[in-house]
Amino acid sequence: MAVALPERTDAGVYFIGRIRTPWTRREDCPKNPAASDAPCTIALDPGFAAGLAELDTFSHLIVLYWMDRAARDLVVQRPRSHGAPRGVFALRSPARPNPIALSCVRLERIDGADLHVRGLDCVDGTPLIDIKPYLPSIDSHPDASFGWKSAVTSTREHGNPS
Amino acid sequence: MAVALPERTDAGVYFIGRIRTPWTRREDCPKNPAASDAPCTIALDPGFAAGLAELDTFSHLIVLYWMDRAARDLVVQRPRSHGAPRGVFALRSPARPNPIALSCVRLERIDGADLHVRGLDCVDGTPLIDIKPYLPSIDSHPDASFGWKSAVTSTREHGNPS
Repeated sequence: MAVALPERTDAGVYFIGRIRTPWTRREDCPKNPAASDAPCTIALDPGFAAGLAELDTFSHLIVLYWMDRAARDLVVQRPRSHGAPRGVFALRSPARPNPIALSCVRLERIDGADLHVRGLDCVDGTPLIDIKPYLPSIDSHPDASFGWKSAVTSTREHGNPS
Repeated sequence: MAVALPERTDAGVYFIGRIRTPWTRREDCPKNPAASDAPCTIALDPGFAAGLAELDTFSHLIVLYWMDRAARDLVVQRPRSHGAPRGVFALRSPARPNPIALSCVRLERIDGADLHVRGLDCVDGTPLIDIKPYLPSIDSHPDASFGWKSAVTSTREHGNPS
């Protein structure tokens, strides 16, 4: 189900780097960030490299990236792996009004403006829009529950309404 | 320390709603999302309400919002509560190249296009840009470590390099 989007956007984002992954086609990407441990590289534009100071002391990062190939008007979607249609805000689908994807990744090493990480699932060349430190005291909620998914989940798909 | 930003942005975001909080001035906001349990409302634009289908089965959500009053060119910042300057990507400061803030909130109730939640820290009227289900299998990393902060943390400030 599609809705009419507003005529114009309200603010602009800068692409501040690119994400380098082993997957060149969307259909080759892992189903979710937990489904692959492949090493990936976040190539920050060197002009922003000063912003990495002290980041290497964190074990995990939150990465925001722009899913530039995704539709933006699909408010109800039927995920490939589940029968019933769901609202976009109950899904992690890349197709959403603002196609911003979020992954929590493990930081292995920073080399200049390149961050070597594990835990990404996007196609090679995806635009980077933010890096944040992962703070377990505010970001980790191991007891969070999820309803519709838990009823239909399988081990392979666990935790990935996409 | 400021850098020159690119001349133009690369993509546009829609403001898809507004966040209603008890705080009208930035200086009144809690220091981080964990520092307040105040009830807040995410007022989604009714045109996107169909996107909420099935969301009420999740206990926690990830909310992305746009810090429209923040500077975007400060790649190194000295947080109020800590002495040493840090890179912006090692901070959760609202001032960043793309001023997108992220909070993990507890969902209490959905009433039409209004989501009643706890765990926000922004000023009243902040533009909403996305809502995602929180999935503990990919989003919860209770053992994530953080270096510089753990050395200087206090109970009050724990987990908030902002």
